[in-house]
Amino acid sequence: MWNEEYDVVIIGSGFAGLAAAIEARRAGSSVIVLEKMGVPGGNSTISGGLVAAAGSPLQARENIKDSPELMLADMLAAGQDFNHRDLAAIVAERSAETLLWTINELGVKYKPELSHLGGHSVARTYNTANTSGAGIIRPMLVKCREMDIPIRLKTFLSQMIADANGGMEGVEVREDYIFPNRESGSVKCIRAKKAVILATGGFGQDKEFRAIQNPLLTEDVECTNHRGATAESLIMALKMGATPVQLSMIQLGPWASRDEEGFGVGSMFSMLAGFPYGILIDLRTGERFVNEQADRKLLVDAMLSSGRESIAIVDAMGVRHATTLEQCLKRGVVRKFDTIEELAMANQAPLLPLKATIETYNALIEKGRDDRFGKPIPKDLLPMKHPPYYAIRLISKVHHCMGGIRINTKAQVLRIDNGLPIGRFYAAGEIVGGVHGASRLGSNAIPECLVFGRIAGSNAACEPPRS
Amino acid sequence: MWNEEYDVVIIGSGFAGLAAAIEARRAGSSVIVLEKMGVPGGNSTISGGLVAAAGSPLQARENIKDSPELMLADMLAAGQDFNHRDLAAIVAERSAETLLWTINELGVKYKPELSHLGGHSVARTYNTANTSGAGIIRPMLVKCREMDIPIRLKTFLSQMIADANGGMEGVEVREDYIFPNRESGSVKCIRAKKAVILATGGFGQDKEFRAIQNPLLTEDVECTNHRGATAESLIMALKMGATPVQLSMIQLGPWASRDEEGFGVGSMFSMLAGFPYGILIDLRTGERFVNEQADRKLLVDAMLSSGRESIAIVDAMGVRHATTLEQCLKRGVVRKFDTIEELAMANQAPLLPLKATIETYNALIEKGRDDRFGKPIPKDLLPMKHPPYYAIRLISKVHHCMGGIRINTKAQVLRIDNGLPIGRFYAAGEIVGGVHGASRLGSNAIPECLVFGRIAGSNAACEPPRS
Repeated sequence: MWNEEYDVVIIGSGFAGLAAAIEARRAGSSVIVLEKMGVPGGNSTISGGLVAAAGSPLQARENIKDSPELMLADMLAAGQDFNHRDLAAIVAERSAETLLWTINELGVKYKPELSHLGGHSVARTYNTANTSGAGIIRPMLVKCREMDIPIRLKTFLSQMIADANGGMEGVEVREDYIFPNRESGSVKCIRAKKAVILATGGFGQDKEFRAIQNPLLTEDVECTNHRGATAESLIMALKMGATPVQLSMIQLGPWASRDEEGFGVGSMFSMLAGFPYGILIDLRTGERFVNEQADRKLLVDAMLSSGRESIAIVDAMGVRHATTLEQCLKRGVVRKFDTIEELAMANQAPLLPLKATIETYNALIEKGRDDRFGKPIPKDLLPMKHPPYYAIRLISKVHHCMGGIRINTKAQVLRIDNGLPIGRFYAAGEIVGGVHGASRLGSNAIPECLVFGRIAGSNAACEPPRS
Repeated sequence: MWNEEYDVVIIGSGFAGLAAAIEARRAGSSVIVLEKMGVPGGNSTISGGLVAAAGSPLQARENIKDSPELMLADMLAAGQDFNHRDLAAIVAERSAETLLWTINELGVKYKPELSHLGGHSVARTYNTANTSGAGIIRPMLVKCREMDIPIRLKTFLSQMIADANGGMEGVEVREDYIFPNRESGSVKCIRAKKAVILATGGFGQDKEFRAIQNPLLTEDVECTNHRGATAESLIMALKMGATPVQLSMIQLGPWASRDEEGFGVGSMFSMLAGFPYGILIDLRTGERFVNEQADRKLLVDAMLSSGRESIAIVDAMGVRHATTLEQCLKRGVVRKFDTIEELAMANQAPLLPLKATIETYNALIEKGRDDRFGKPIPKDLLPMKHPPYYAIRLISKVHHCMGGIRINTKAQVLRIDNGLPIGRFYAAGEIVGGVHGASRLGSNAIPECLVFGRIAGSNAACEPPRS
């Protein structure tokens, strides 16, 4: 029945899958990574490449006091305490060491400044030098090549194969699969002598499945994910007896552009410049309505609650933090205006209220405290009065699935009927539920994927091999 | 292998299970109802016996304009649009007819006045004459006896048995089972010639399972449900391939007493008198903090958000609506005070702010509009100034699981992998997810159970019998 066998079979080639592969291989196991799409890296490649770490060298350089405890507290606050705290704590505890691992082991290049993302108490976010998750995925692929880890593309997980004890024995796949045609490709069975690791990401693009969990996410609600972010492997895991966790908790990103598809280049513009160094404006009123640095859930709820159309505005000083400005301008995702008058007219915003809003906001900044919405005002945040001005039109898009299957701190998948591990079955990354509770903070996904990917890989490699 | 067979095998003897049994039997099928506990009726018996209906005789008498559309809109508003709208619509559409069915077919006795419960746009709630769900369950049990429907107690569903097509062929049970000992009783297999109907209720008492979905619901968070409200049948259904829906949406009741266990007698006191005709007070400040007639989720969130200890106060006029007053006083769940001074002292509430709060509140009532918190002010709501005063100390308790398994409008359980019905498998009542979205309105559970119980029973009876 088996066409091939490896010690560790990994499904998915994003951050979690590749981290697992590297650790399992390093521990001496034979490893294969299966990827259904035609390119490796999944959603990780197109992510913004933001990495939170509590207690990093850049924080030390800038005298920023941080700790895993503080990072965990931020995660729990955003997650509304729905987090599986033991899992969240591990991400926070290992975040700094994991960041160093990407630098020292993988050679990832980061920008020399930290970002302070919404919902984080302090600046703790590293940015990859190329402002993209590809800045981490590429070095990981290089490392896999050096370690002789095969990454088999266009290979679709069509079935999980259980052993006599209900544990994971291997997988049936379709090779030369053409996404999303489930009848394409040819069937092969791959045995896992030690374990299977599921690292297939979220289901943000699975419009049918996500609507069952959150009917507000109708067909027309856009998504920042790559097309392959679908639910079929999650469903297979549940049928194997895995425990569903918080599947209805699906995050929308508040920062995406109305003028491009997907994550695009606008999201990073808003995240790094528009929100921290600019203001978020309700186009109907010309007013601010929320702390621009709140976590994503609070922002999206505020943006959706009254059906407001929103733009973010930033001036010439604030825009220096935008790493994707050039592409944004080229693609018409961000527009530049010499005056607020022109900006208001082009966006059909009411001019006088908008000007009043900016005046009020500038006064708050000079005072050093936003008593209206509680936006944190770091010392490099300047009053907004330096033309030209830049505006991005926003729309909320499905971005991240907080829900998924339940694992323990060893990354073992837990059975729904008794809470015990399913034999030889690990999971890591967005397929796992509970780490982030009701809302994931920006730049916490990559730490989660890398931390639990590495844990899964190490532990899978320690399973006693089947004869 | 089979010890017995019936056309329709129903698991659970609450509202949904008995409604299904009556309809299936009426359609000519042989039926058995299996109940794991030693008494029939499950959680339904101890519920408050509140039944919402849009377009009822009492509404007509009182000239209250209502419609299924309005009831649906209320359900969606409370549910934050997480509702599976097709299911919610059916509950609203059939609510009035179902109420009449309980009166005409079952002989249920109701009080002659409607109640206006929180989150409902209008008064649409019937109260059973004995202020308890037993007022409906007992006539249902009588009807079952008349129709020769056996209700087998202490019979635990230990396994679902699939047919060759993955449909439901029957169940393995343990007879003479002693809850919660899963090894107790003797094993028997019962075949369903037509279908199995799962009507086993929610999992509010399953402290392990509920904490996986909502980690805030720790061991010490109390629950209004009967002890048998556990998750094992939900888990079995998921293992059969059913689709989990919104399992993390678990409702706490804001109206339960700190001075008794479970639902008790205090809950109805708050629901019928304390909240609609009294005020809800933060004991630390002596102030109101929320519209007392908001839906349960908003109330609980407001009560929990700042860790406030709350009491509800009602005066001699308002207390006339409390149907459980005598028992409440006898059990010390509600205490009576001649003056606000005494009430404040006994509850350690700050007196002057409390008096100011009551004055402000009374002024709002006389004005006819609560511009502070938006509480609806019907014409029979009087200023609170008639001693004696009554106070109940509140604590939020787990009350209802909005999440569960997915069904279609025919009450067929839908597969997770393709959305199609699992053969010969129906479900109704609290085990079903999606009807109420993020928050169930008070008095909407009984309509849901009866409407979908009846649908399940009718449709199960129409399945072609196995040979």
